[in-house]
Amino acid sequence: MSDADEALVVFTPSGRRGRFPVGTPVLEAARALGVDIDSVCGGRGLCGRCQVDLCEGHFSKHGVESWPDHLSAKSDTEQAWETRRGPLRDGRRLSCSTQLLGDAVIDVPASSQVHRQIVRKRAEVLDIELDPIVRLYYVAVQEPDMHVPASDLRRLKDALAYEWHLAELETDIRVVQQLQQALRQGHWGVTVAVYDDRRLIGVWPGFQSQVYGMAVDVGSTTLAAHLCNLQTGEVVASAGRMNPQIRYGEDLMSRVSYIMMNPGGDQAMTRSVRDALNELTVELATEADVHVDAILEATFVGNPIMQSLVFGINPVELGGAPFALATDEAIDGLWATEMDLVIHPNARVYGLPCIAGHVGADTAGMILSETPYLGEELMLLVDVGTNAEIVLGNRHRLLACSSPTGPAFEGAQISGGQRAAAGAIERVRIDPLTLEPRYKVIGGELWSNEPGFDEAAAPYGVTGICGSGIIEVIAEMYLAGIINQDGVVQGDLATRSERIVADGRTFAYVLHRDATRTIAITQTDIRAIQLAKAALYAGIRLLMEHFGTERVDRIRLAGAFGAHIDVKYAMILGLIPDCDLDHVTAAGNAAGTGARIALLSRRARREIEEVVRRVEKVETATEPRFQEHFVAAMAIPHRHDPFPQLRAEVTLPAVTAESPAASRGGRRRRRQRA
Amino acid sequence: MSDADEALVVFTPSGRRGRFPVGTPVLEAARALGVDIDSVCGGRGLCGRCQVDLCEGHFSKHGVESWPDHLSAKSDTEQAWETRRGPLRDGRRLSCSTQLLGDAVIDVPASSQVHRQIVRKRAEVLDIELDPIVRLYYVAVQEPDMHVPASDLRRLKDALAYEWHLAELETDIRVVQQLQQALRQGHWGVTVAVYDDRRLIGVWPGFQSQVYGMAVDVGSTTLAAHLCNLQTGEVVASAGRMNPQIRYGEDLMSRVSYIMMNPGGDQAMTRSVRDALNELTVELATEADVHVDAILEATFVGNPIMQSLVFGINPVELGGAPFALATDEAIDGLWATEMDLVIHPNARVYGLPCIAGHVGADTAGMILSETPYLGEELMLLVDVGTNAEIVLGNRHRLLACSSPTGPAFEGAQISGGQRAAAGAIERVRIDPLTLEPRYKVIGGELWSNEPGFDEAAAPYGVTGICGSGIIEVIAEMYLAGIINQDGVVQGDLATRSERIVADGRTFAYVLHRDATRTIAITQTDIRAIQLAKAALYAGIRLLMEHFGTERVDRIRLAGAFGAHIDVKYAMILGLIPDCDLDHVTAAGNAAGTGARIALLSRRARREIEEVVRRVEKVETATEPRFQEHFVAAMAIPHRHDPFPQLRAEVTLPAVTAESPAASRGGRRRRRQRA
Repeated sequence: MSDADEALVVFTPSGRRGRFPVGTPVLEAARALGVDIDSVCGGRGLCGRCQVDLCEGHFSKHGVESWPDHLSAKSDTEQAWETRRGPLRDGRRLSCSTQLLGDAVIDVPASSQVHRQIVRKRAEVLDIELDPIVRLYYVAVQEPDMHVPASDLRRLKDALAYEWHLAELETDIRVVQQLQQALRQGHWGVTVAVYDDRRLIGVWPGFQSQVYGMAVDVGSTTLAAHLCNLQTGEVVASAGRMNPQIRYGEDLMSRVSYIMMNPGGDQAMTRSVRDALNELTVELATEADVHVDAILEATFVGNPIMQSLVFGINPVELGGAPFALATDEAIDGLWATEMDLVIHPNARVYGLPCIAGHVGADTAGMILSETPYLGEELMLLVDVGTNAEIVLGNRHRLLACSSPTGPAFEGAQISGGQRAAAGAIERVRIDPLTLEPRYKVIGGELWSNEPGFDEAAAPYGVTGICGSGIIEVIAEMYLAGIINQDGVVQGDLATRSERIVADGRTFAYVLHRDATRTIAITQTDIRAIQLAKAALYAGIRLLMEHFGTERVDRIRLAGAFGAHIDVKYAMILGLIPDCDLDHVTAAGNAAGTGARIALLSRRARREIEEVVRRVEKVETATEPRFQEHFVAAMAIPHRHDPFPQLRAEVTLPAVTAESPAASRGGRRRRRQRA
Repeated sequence: MSDADEALVVFTPSGRRGRFPVGTPVLEAARALGVDIDSVCGGRGLCGRCQVDLCEGHFSKHGVESWPDHLSAKSDTEQAWETRRGPLRDGRRLSCSTQLLGDAVIDVPASSQVHRQIVRKRAEVLDIELDPIVRLYYVAVQEPDMHVPASDLRRLKDALAYEWHLAELETDIRVVQQLQQALRQGHWGVTVAVYDDRRLIGVWPGFQSQVYGMAVDVGSTTLAAHLCNLQTGEVVASAGRMNPQIRYGEDLMSRVSYIMMNPGGDQAMTRSVRDALNELTVELATEADVHVDAILEATFVGNPIMQSLVFGINPVELGGAPFALATDEAIDGLWATEMDLVIHPNARVYGLPCIAGHVGADTAGMILSETPYLGEELMLLVDVGTNAEIVLGNRHRLLACSSPTGPAFEGAQISGGQRAAAGAIERVRIDPLTLEPRYKVIGGELWSNEPGFDEAAAPYGVTGICGSGIIEVIAEMYLAGIINQDGVVQGDLATRSERIVADGRTFAYVLHRDATRTIAITQTDIRAIQLAKAALYAGIRLLMEHFGTERVDRIRLAGAFGAHIDVKYAMILGLIPDCDLDHVTAAGNAAGTGARIALLSRRARREIEEVVRRVEKVETATEPRFQEHFVAAMAIPHRHDPFPQLRAEVTLPAVTAESPAASRGGRRRRRQRA
């Protein structure tokens, strides 16, 4: 039983409880008990972030009994809030505007907690704790008094210390420049943005509740960005566009070569990617109906060369041995203006750390997103692009390398290859008896042997074959016996099927033929895929060998490639080591997810900075064992122990200038020195 | 006696001593003992900053006996240094390149100490400890190794931690951007600039020994700047120029009015003063033969309005009550680029704190320069401009105010007045019997009654009378009885001297007359000086009253006015309170000196920031006692206790729109609201 002048209140889910004088606002009681309730406006009924669910009641031996008059009636402030923002959910109240009149049990919903969890879609990784580095605070500042000549800034800081316990704040000069007008326009009420609990970076007149951040993945082909509400963690807009640096070179190495041969080329590329980012930013802001000035933070991931260029660092050292990074630290607290970004001029930028010369901040983002470092399970992360970034490990140890797969997996250097786009063959099945194929194209639901396929495919036709289609067709060719374990097209099958045709001194398999186009898988195509998959597999084997394991528990395939391929075929072809198929899954844009996690959580930044320092970097270019694994992996699916005769049979990539492994370090370096 | 394999070394003046193995470099021994010896190159014989005087010797019961072979012979490194930089002074050695071979007494001269004292010219204040916020360090960095993939920045930091014990450094992005090229150009040796022992702000290939800073005094009329070598404290160039904001208004209040009436006017003034600063910077750098990129720090002082404008803060709030400053903190760690300065883009800027709406960073600079807060002596500091800034106090208590003297002391609003320039009368004597004057003009050595005066003055003629001349002529007129204690020109003297002439209903005193020009001191001129000196004296009395004292121990007169007036006349006229004349001295540009001290000493910055927080601000505009003191001080020299009849006699400034005290708060404010 409560005393006549006091009320007992219990907060759930924390279980904290205490007695307070009748008339105490619920928010005040919560704070006195250290209950985690959010508020931007400081209890003024403006922000609506302090909502609670009221299970009002009376404590008796039977538990809590409903007793509706134990809380004050809906206040004018709450009604005014509802007029502006729409009705409160049933049973919800603004805790700042509700007084305790008697005993009560009060639930703080997850959405009202400061340090609430953002629930991620996948269940197997930890949720992100929402803890953005920029937070807004509304504060009422004392008017100036000639007899107490404290400056506007000092009175603002006094108010922030008193209301929000923010002490010893530093201040951006632009805040000082804008402060006096903001205070007077806001009638001595302003909203400030505080960076990392230590620095004032923004000020607006009156109450302002919106603050946004941008997470950017700078790919060599594509720029992708998410705009997030930093107070809810919600993605409010997403957009992508081509990286305009492509005009300086399709792949990374040709861009570095461009810079080597064109002084100032790095600055031109930096400008071009930043210009594109700014266009992307405006697009995101327009889509979400947000002013670009409300964007106060941006995070970046990218491979080492992309990350260097976006931050204005000349990447030429990454074009040749010893592949020295300028920095392997996170880029922390950079001003957006230092990158000429169009977001709030005091916005800050965070770049995830690069790990080594070939293992970039995108890999750090993938590690942060997939968190292999948290579990006992041995996890293999693979992100396939022109290079494959490979991470292997668990909470005890993490290894990483980059393997030069070349662009074959993306459909480049393949006779009928193309990027994944409408009209591209992406699924293939071959009847092992007739050797006849059926396939599906991107944008179509039907198999090619189903009625209506031609009509459905008519708008674009069958235009080529994309990366996942190539994996499938070669795996199916292997399963149907059209190629042997060494990848050789069996010319004697030409007698059984007209799909097998001579192509010079080798044979090809005709997958599609119509009036305008023939798509055939040639011996050269198969060799290109063998080289790519051997490089990938050799990198994985190298890490497994360094780790001292013959098996992995889980495989996560990141990026577009991982999202599109059928993992069964990847395993048939020997791209990845044996693993329970249920444990091989696509990770989506894990690098971008890592950027988003870093945007929403300060703790995550410190975590990935600490983790990348522990990552053991394995250099494929100088590891003799990589070459051995590479040779062994040319076979389908692969040979763990290379046979001497196989080594003689295939062209060893280490000694030819054209192999992807050799070209990276050797040839480019010579060109640089020439 | 020393052991055969060890040598005893004693360092003076520290007296630190220890035994070291024979062969130990002297610098190493010094560091092991914590002896303060400077070095930029880290013991490589490049910088020459570690020079010591060798009193080599042998310790016996007779003291130290000379024993020349107890130190290694002059090394190749030292000889190479001498070839580059000239011979070492007799007995001097580079301590990094000299080994202990036996017992030795070694003197570290002041110029080789890291925390050496800069001896200032005046003896009565403490010397400055040279402790600039930016320091250079040369360091050799390990070459990159593909098998240990630490980034260039990490290896640089490792080397800085190892060689210089600089740990946990943050890094400007421009350093990251320049690092790789600098390392390779410098063959893995670079010089870095470290800000406040915590952040890398510059990097250069190889050894670089020059780093400069700029101390700037932003006056409403004049910009003055000193370029200092931050390693020696030496001023290498000084220059000044007009503040181009004058085109927006001669005095502060007319500039603020301009801004009130012209939106964007503040930005135009900010641009104009920064442009002039940049021209001044180039002039200084050219004069000293220093590249502007070697300037890594700048400090600023100015009155509140000038300080606001140079930092891009709109000063309109300072144009009317309650005169709220945007900030009363120091502007700390601003990037030079945020002010569009042409010095090193990573240079940082420090602005001394303003104290109150009328008491600026220039006053803080004066306090830092004069250090009244250190002694028991009660010190009065006065800086006379359009306003007079007045500081009174000692180590126990400091008071400050600003008093609206108006521009009369600068020769403005005086019929024959002009700025201090060649041809202006600056010294005056009047014969009390004949009432005949004699005078000197700026640029001339002769009195006007001495033979050759006219010839000497011919190039410019006698053009007017400057501030110090006005003080003297009015004081001499008082001493000669031409004016009475109330400042009234005694018309009956016209019978005795034709110098006394009627001027409307009052009389004037003709000081100079030639073919082209008559310079007379009118009753209006005398009233203007009376108003100005009354405002000054009333401010001083107000502070004395708040302090509870009737006397001061020492008076320091800062600025051009203080430098030119004869303090005797200032006391006769009653500008300043009675004080032993020997204790009334000119302080020179004390504000500018304060900026220079802050440039050279980090400790001084913390000191002045702490001191200004303790200063008690007295607001003359709202203190009724100020008006009473003002009225009393109209008399010559002054009346401490105002007589009621005098109040009726003179026009009370508080109730007229034209008085300087009233115009500041009242009239401008009304205009702003209109």
